[in-house]
Amino acid sequence: MRNSRRGEIDPFIVMDVMEAARAAEAAGRHIIHMEVGQPGTGAPAAALSRLAADMQDEPLGYTVGLGLPELRARIAQHYRDWYDIDVDAGRIVVTAGASGAFLLAFSALFDTGARVGLGAPCYPSYRQILKAMDMVPVDMPTTLAARMQPVAADVAAHDLNGLIVASPANPTGTMLGRTEMADLAAACAAADAAFISDEIYHGLGYHGRCVSALEVTDEVIVINSFSKYFSMTGWRVGWMVVPEDQVRRIERLAQNMFICPSHASQRLALYAMDCAETLDAHVDVYRTNRDLMMEALPQMGLGQFAPPDGAFYVYVDVGDYTSDSLEFCAQVLEKAGVAITPGLDFDPVEGGHWVRLSYARSTQDIREGLARLADFMAGLRAED
Amino acid sequence: MRNSRRGEIDPFIVMDVMEAARAAEAAGRHIIHMEVGQPGTGAPAAALSRLAADMQDEPLGYTVGLGLPELRARIAQHYRDWYDIDVDAGRIVVTAGASGAFLLAFSALFDTGARVGLGAPCYPSYRQILKAMDMVPVDMPTTLAARMQPVAADVAAHDLNGLIVASPANPTGTMLGRTEMADLAAACAAADAAFISDEIYHGLGYHGRCVSALEVTDEVIVINSFSKYFSMTGWRVGWMVVPEDQVRRIERLAQNMFICPSHASQRLALYAMDCAETLDAHVDVYRTNRDLMMEALPQMGLGQFAPPDGAFYVYVDVGDYTSDSLEFCAQVLEKAGVAITPGLDFDPVEGGHWVRLSYARSTQDIREGLARLADFMAGLRAED
Repeated sequence: MRNSRRGEIDPFIVMDVMEAARAAEAAGRHIIHMEVGQPGTGAPAAALSRLAADMQDEPLGYTVGLGLPELRARIAQHYRDWYDIDVDAGRIVVTAGASGAFLLAFSALFDTGARVGLGAPCYPSYRQILKAMDMVPVDMPTTLAARMQPVAADVAAHDLNGLIVASPANPTGTMLGRTEMADLAAACAAADAAFISDEIYHGLGYHGRCVSALEVTDEVIVINSFSKYFSMTGWRVGWMVVPEDQVRRIERLAQNMFICPSHASQRLALYAMDCAETLDAHVDVYRTNRDLMMEALPQMGLGQFAPPDGAFYVYVDVGDYTSDSLEFCAQVLEKAGVAITPGLDFDPVEGGHWVRLSYARSTQDIREGLARLADFMAGLRAED
Repeated sequence: MRNSRRGEIDPFIVMDVMEAARAAEAAGRHIIHMEVGQPGTGAPAAALSRLAADMQDEPLGYTVGLGLPELRARIAQHYRDWYDIDVDAGRIVVTAGASGAFLLAFSALFDTGARVGLGAPCYPSYRQILKAMDMVPVDMPTTLAARMQPVAADVAAHDLNGLIVASPANPTGTMLGRTEMADLAAACAAADAAFISDEIYHGLGYHGRCVSALEVTDEVIVINSFSKYFSMTGWRVGWMVVPEDQVRRIERLAQNMFICPSHASQRLALYAMDCAETLDAHVDVYRTNRDLMMEALPQMGLGQFAPPDGAFYVYVDVGDYTSDSLEFCAQVLEKAGVAITPGLDFDPVEGGHWVRLSYARSTQDIREGLARLADFMAGLRAED
């Protein structure tokens, strides 16, 4: 059958790691999962109970394209509660996960050939979605000094039509402060480049709260998700906040490209927003896990990283040991029984000497995984 | 903020009709809904109960990108049960509704500027999604003689890179027989045009079963949905069957563009496939409704249509009364309290003198709606 050029995108390497880990488990091995980007927990039980009641009472047919009005209003309230800012509920678009939001944002903003800047390393799908839409992802190298985030000067230097930032970022967990965020927004405005802020790890900050781009500008598309803090990965629901003058455009795109996000997922999201106590307890687990990581990794010779401010990842330079992170991760899986992710997903250029470790699972798992990694690294140094 | 050209798509007119109907109801009027393209019923109760149990027992995190293996296997079984054909489960891709399947299929098959043929009238979102992806929808006029379906000669005549057919079709409900389907597939193969068959109304056929394009060729992307026969609109889950050599391409696109369809929706779909008795009872209702329509519409002067073979629509030429179907539908809503859809959504050229009536709701509603329409039409003729 005929193929498109735009459909020639790269595989998602972490998926192959997950498959290798699954195969090892199927063969009877015990594997610690430090590869996955999702909580081990499900949606809050109280929210699930309310959804189960709705499922008995109502057909849960299509919602309007922009999402349930009560959920949009509740998200507006969330901006008052968490950030002390007023966001009109009319600017909030409920989406089929952050993934759906990217498809809508890129369609609304960019034409074929548009150049969209990404700070490398970054979430791999930005790059692949842009390619699949016949746009041009522009990888911009970052530095440990800038905590692996893009800086304002990058915007003009790369002749961009748009910029995507993420704070806390995947794979690094580093955050942009208010000043950095404002500088990036201003650089985009000056260059007539669209500014997109991926805030899906908000709520998972370990040194105070995360700064939203909405605190510094309204000329931004903010993308968020119920997958991480709200622990609802498999339900595929997220949201975006868009400038007033983009609402109708994005509504038309959403109606045609998605009809609506899952009605049940929207209800569950609404109910999950009332479960802060349960969700904050998850964050306490991640914080404990992070502290264990920060202590143990340097002791085993894995100290080259920007300490994460948020999310549940740490991105480690393993250049002292390898320039082939795929092989390195395969060895760690085989010898230590720990699944970790090679950096090549996040950075096709430099990722050969980086790996990502996730600490989203239970503290018991993280302790065990770190002990196994320490043994592995000791063995590696003994070989030298 | 900057805007893309590709994002400049048309509004979904039926959404405006639904909003006008909602506003009339909010003002205290009783409205009969013949505008909506969804069953009045929800998912089967037995399936919902099984999902509710899963929700208590499991976190329902991400699934693999192609969907739950047991659901893919169950869909393969469905092709044996319904069509007596063998389809490898490895060729089945579970999607975020048929909408998600269109985004994947178009990305995998077509590049910027690709010409994709549509028989007018058709489902409006085909046109809008293609535009949003910088492809070119090519409207091909159809005739009542060909029951408003494209014919094989159209493929070469319009210099196409791809063709989308739908059987049963929206808005007409007409079907392609095995011969017509085979002729269209052969014409596409001869022209090196991709062949896409939208089969989301399968199961809703009133003169024997619907023919799948998979019965005549493997060189096709078949798109289906759990929204219509399975009565799961709001859950946003569907599937596609793709040629063997497209599976890995589409897997990569699906991983990056969607991660996965809603896990809960996939479970529910799996369970709904065991609820044939409940679902077939819905079809009996639609059949009764269709018969009422076929009898009543010609008597009230609305006899210009191709009798529908399936789905739950009839598409009526109202050219004897108006060339402004928007205004005609507004009058019907205001004077008769019946919401129907103007043809302009489905056919921007000829749709000004066509309307679509849906008979997806209860038989009681359809009877009342037809009585109101008959009064309205009598009044219209009396004015002449």
